Amino acid sequence: MKSQNWARKTKQFVFRTFAATSLKSRCIIPKLKSKEPPKMATTLRGKPFERQVLDSMLRRRMFYTPAFEIYNGVGGLYDYGPPGCALQSNIIELWRKHFILEEDMLEVDCTSLTPEEVLKTSGHVEKFADWMCKDPKNGEIIRADHYVEEILEARLKGDKEARGLQVTSNDDSSKKKKKIKSISAVRLEDATVAEYEGILAKIDNFDGPELGRLITKYDLKNPATGVLPSEPVAFNLMFQTSIGPSSNAPGYLRPETAQGQFVNFAKLLEFNQQQMPFASASVGKSFRNEISPRSGLLRVREFLMAEIEHFVDPDGGKKHSRFEEVKDVELTFLNRQTQISGQTNVEKMTIGKAVANGTVANETLGYFLARIHLFLKKIGVDLSKVRFRQHMANEMAHYACDCWDAELLTSYGWIECVGCADRSAYDLTVHSRKTGAPLVVRERLANPITIEEWQIDIDKKKFGPKFKKNGKIIEAAIEALSQEKLATLAQDLASNGKITIDVEDVDSDGVELGKDLISIERRKRVENTREYTPNVIEPSFGIGRILYALLEHNYWTRGNEGGDEARHVLSFPPIVAPTKVLIVPLSSHVSFKPLIKQISSKLRVLGVSSRIDDSSASIGKRYSRNDELGTPLGITIDFQSVKDQTFTLRDRDSTKQVRADKEAILTAVKALVEGEKNWSDVEKQLPSFDGQDIDSVIP
Amino acid sequence: MKSQNWARKTKQFVFRTFAATSLKSRCIIPKLKSKEPPKMATTLRGKPFERQVLDSMLRRRMFYTPAFEIYNGVGGLYDYGPPGCALQSNIIELWRKHFILEEDMLEVDCTSLTPEEVLKTSGHVEKFADWMCKDPKNGEIIRADHYVEEILEARLKGDKEARGLQVTSNDDSSKKKKKIKSISAVRLEDATVAEYEGILAKIDNFDGPELGRLITKYDLKNPATGVLPSEPVAFNLMFQTSIGPSSNAPGYLRPETAQGQFVNFAKLLEFNQQQMPFASASVGKSFRNEISPRSGLLRVREFLMAEIEHFVDPDGGKKHSRFEEVKDVELTFLNRQTQISGQTNVEKMTIGKAVANGTVANETLGYFLARIHLFLKKIGVDLSKVRFRQHMANEMAHYACDCWDAELLTSYGWIECVGCADRSAYDLTVHSRKTGAPLVVRERLANPITIEEWQIDIDKKKFGPKFKKNGKIIEAAIEALSQEKLATLAQDLASNGKITIDVEDVDSDGVELGKDLISIERRKRVENTREYTPNVIEPSFGIGRILYALLEHNYWTRGNEGGDEARHVLSFPPIVAPTKVLIVPLSSHVSFKPLIKQISSKLRVLGVSSRIDDSSASIGKRYSRNDELGTPLGITIDFQSVKDQTFTLRDRDSTKQVRADKEAILTAVKALVEGEKNWSDVEKQLPSFDGQDIDSVIP
Repeated sequence: MKSQNWARKTKQFVFRTFAATSLKSRCIIPKLKSKEPPKMATTLRGKPFERQVLDSMLRRRMFYTPAFEIYNGVGGLYDYGPPGCALQSNIIELWRKHFILEEDMLEVDCTSLTPEEVLKTSGHVEKFADWMCKDPKNGEIIRADHYVEEILEARLKGDKEARGLQVTSNDDSSKKKKKIKSISAVRLEDATVAEYEGILAKIDNFDGPELGRLITKYDLKNPATGVLPSEPVAFNLMFQTSIGPSSNAPGYLRPETAQGQFVNFAKLLEFNQQQMPFASASVGKSFRNEISPRSGLLRVREFLMAEIEHFVDPDGGKKHSRFEEVKDVELTFLNRQTQISGQTNVEKMTIGKAVANGTVANETLGYFLARIHLFLKKIGVDLSKVRFRQHMANEMAHYACDCWDAELLTSYGWIECVGCADRSAYDLTVHSRKTGAPLVVRERLANPITIEEWQIDIDKKKFGPKFKKNGKIIEAAIEALSQEKLATLAQDLASNGKITIDVEDVDSDGVELGKDLISIERRKRVENTREYTPNVIEPSFGIGRILYALLEHNYWTRGNEGGDEARHVLSFPPIVAPTKVLIVPLSSHVSFKPLIKQISSKLRVLGVSSRIDDSSASIGKRYSRNDELGTPLGITIDFQSVKDQTFTLRDRDSTKQVRADKEAILTAVKALVEGEKNWSDVEKQLPSFDGQDIDSVIP
Repeated sequence: MKSQNWARKTKQFVFRTFAATSLKSRCIIPKLKSKEPPKMATTLRGKPFERQVLDSMLRRRMFYTPAFEIYNGVGGLYDYGPPGCALQSNIIELWRKHFILEEDMLEVDCTSLTPEEVLKTSGHVEKFADWMCKDPKNGEIIRADHYVEEILEARLKGDKEARGLQVTSNDDSSKKKKKIKSISAVRLEDATVAEYEGILAKIDNFDGPELGRLITKYDLKNPATGVLPSEPVAFNLMFQTSIGPSSNAPGYLRPETAQGQFVNFAKLLEFNQQQMPFASASVGKSFRNEISPRSGLLRVREFLMAEIEHFVDPDGGKKHSRFEEVKDVELTFLNRQTQISGQTNVEKMTIGKAVANGTVANETLGYFLARIHLFLKKIGVDLSKVRFRQHMANEMAHYACDCWDAELLTSYGWIECVGCADRSAYDLTVHSRKTGAPLVVRERLANPITIEEWQIDIDKKKFGPKFKKNGKIIEAAIEALSQEKLATLAQDLASNGKITIDVEDVDSDGVELGKDLISIERRKRVENTREYTPNVIEPSFGIGRILYALLEHNYWTRGNEGGDEARHVLSFPPIVAPTKVLIVPLSSHVSFKPLIKQISSKLRVLGVSSRIDDSSASIGKRYSRNDELGTPLGITIDFQSVKDQTFTLRDRDSTKQVRADKEAILTAVKALVEGEKNWSDVEKQLPSFDGQDIDSVIP
């Protein structure tokens, strides 16, 4: 009973865990996995995709790098170098424009350091944990669910080999660094195979004791040491520290930015002049102490999140005033029903239809799903690799009404990159109950209403002295009692002269209140204001994951006709490209200097970021380098430029060039960067330049 | 001896501590304090300045708010609300443009979590500490230097009272929350007064044991408990945590962003195609676990820093190629000599002159001082409240050549907001020595040179097996030996057959090396490349402090002729103002809606941030609210607008208005926001509007 309750309760965190995927590894839903076709085998232009090749290019160009590498690095910590940092900034800037500015959201910047009390209330201290085992022989620390999964998978693979069946890559979970390198080909009983497969299909649903029982039952010895690991214990995923000089002020690094927004709700409502609905938003680092980080940028210990908390009146169907504007946006849905039936086939539908037919719970949730889709489109995510997957009932927080993840397909599988949940009134309620702060909206009623209801009166004179510091908490618990509950309690009080109410924080057996302290009566009252706790719709973005998916989605290789090795290209849209324009003088000849300076300062005035490459490498090599950095445009300065002030402009994707005077080139650059024109428009307007096929000159 | 050494060594951190001012409280240099005229007694427009009034307005308007206030808050943690967050974003955006884009700096985003090893090398683990005492009676934890300072100040105040002298506000250090509320008027000996004043003048120079001796010598009992506090112990100011599931991977939250840049030096140099000089830069949170945070936003536990590490060849006088562009910028200097003579009189001088006459050590340092000045000017800091103060020799790191702080005058005194130091080759050298990673620049020499020098050869076959994992560290120590040292060691080896070298990390007694392992010879060699460790010039910005000073510098009150209470104004320059335009419809009448939408979407297209206030408050009240938020412009929509599509535009500072059609108003807005025009230009072009004196309508 208790463990079942725990399992249910942990669900409340499941949909918040994407940015570092913790509680449950849900990047790929295992039971769906084997039925997925391996879609991500090719690059943008249809060539075979090799992750190691892309990864080594990204490190070489310093998109990212393992942090503290000269100190041998630390698992799960990565630094962004200049192009990664610029890409991240551009994504964030676009995010701010697309969400915050567009809808007048209230941006806040809250601290990462969080006192324990706050995270106790939110439930993180108790429940934000993974199960881990220790190998008693070599001391290795192992994540229990990964361990069971890997060993069973390895045994199934061994069985296939023994049966002479082909072992496919789908038998491996590609996202994992395998601990188990080889396994002997041992044939299993048919029934055992079925059992193993059944377990793997629901591996995310086991809690610690259950995982422990599986380890014992199937004798899952660690192949590295030949012994069974210890019983799984819960390991909290938050980084703990101590705030201030004394050790009695424990704190944590926030595992999400949301709590800072919830605790400031009353001030934000006041700032918004009491107007509802409204949204707050925050961009900042969060931290999760992964047991064994892996999958590169996808599961890290420190990561950037962008979160919106949209507060809405729960009455009136959670309509959204701007839903009309997005109702025709077509999304790809993988709904709950389909998943229950064991399928993964997606359905394309407008969000208008999805809300109308009940696929998506309400307009506000639907509005944000559409806005998320539009955002992903804007930054250059490949929309054929996006799906909105609905949470299964058992995957969702018990208080949530509906929850969808925007998942992006990468070589690691379908990755949850944005979560979008209707969190109901949970967060504001728990913080309000704990602190006594009224995190509610009070609304003047146009027509006062008369209500007949149960009311509970407290004899404050006796109540205060009796309960002292617990008084406030008990009072809050009393206020939170429902009418149904009060009706029952009124009977109890009448018949027993006392009642018992649940106040977990004070006494796990409940608090007893006698007739001397309280009375319960049914009364009429006239209400002029309505008071309610807003519901929260929460779109929550894992920026690092989106950034990584964007890299994969925009990567391709350019084969060289001459048979040279493939050249890498990152075809970012100009709006997110780290640098928009590369300025390339033919050589370091002194006559080019003034032109370089002119072009570069003109671009700066236009607000277009550029870099100069006047190194001694060939022009082709310099362009190649910038194709790898995803720079969409190049301006070449040659001796002709010195003579007649004309320049060539090169398009990264087609490698085509046009030649024109400075003004025409700069005008074209601005239009291309701001997305007003595309390259074919420019080619129509400006004469093409074929005088020198720069890209064939690569040595 | 040891303690003296400690004191000297701690100096290396002094100039990096501004953002949360830790080691020493140097916001105001105490010995200068009493001679300072109280300059900051007035607001921007000359009215008396009251900090409490400003502070309560800033909280009311949610510029910032104590974090987790519904949980009673945590000392030294603040959240920025919407206007504070926007102000901070705008300052950062300008910083990026002014520094990073302007000079093609390589921006990186490194992790806050830092393994212990890195911070051991940098010296933070051992030395980044404050001295604290504990009161044995009430358990209170006290910062030792603050404690001595406050008690001595209180006694001097008591003495003054006893002598019948007037106690001025200068006898109090205004930046402190006083622990000692009252003190009896006790007359002291004249000699004692002089002794106390002497101690206070150099309070920042005492280490822990010295502070302990002062407490004993002068019997500095805690007035709250009547007992002496415990002996001061060092308290490290870094937040400690554990990275990963096992407890043997201690880590800290970074106290500065610099180390992430240093450890990535080799990759950044490679990214910059081996070209020198270049700069890296980083904007991010840093953390310092203050013992007793105070002074609002000025001394906090989590804060935003923006740091530049400019790497430069130490040879050739550290020239800067763009120094010409800034040489005529005039700065206000408070140099070392003046401070030594006990004065605070500043000197205005162009940076060109200051470098030429040796006031500032070199061009690169001078270049950045000027650029810092220009940045502060651009964001709207009051330049009459800026000075560049040179560090005293004993205040500076032992390896630094020169260091200047940009100090801004606030009601808390002169606050160090930007540090700019020449850190020599210290950081790269220590990390390189520790890890063996070559953090150097290799430069091809145009003319190879022949060098005669001592060379040391290692017999690798014997060396490796003998020292095992220490081999790399010892080898690095050998490589770091100077020619002078090698000359001595050659003699030692010849006469004793062995030498001893210092390798602290391996053996504190040094490592012995015999003739079997090494040989030392004088040889000639031809050098084709030059190898050097770059020096670092480090401009380091405490964004929160700059932001706070900006608030004070731009704050004033508008007296109402009718005798109403003063109205607050924050006169930010448009470029940093949280919102640029307030859109104010006369009422919530339905006919205004389409116009509001038009104006607001037009402004969005122009990239100008705006907010709509269609609340039911009077127009005057709504403008007042936005004066407090620092919104420079207001567009009013009235019934005339509905008729003829004209609008009024209001200037925050003068409250004057003009009226024109939509295009003219929007053109004016854009020009004002981009700084191309000021209000008087606009007034000349567009007809003024006096039809309705909105500001006199405030109820």
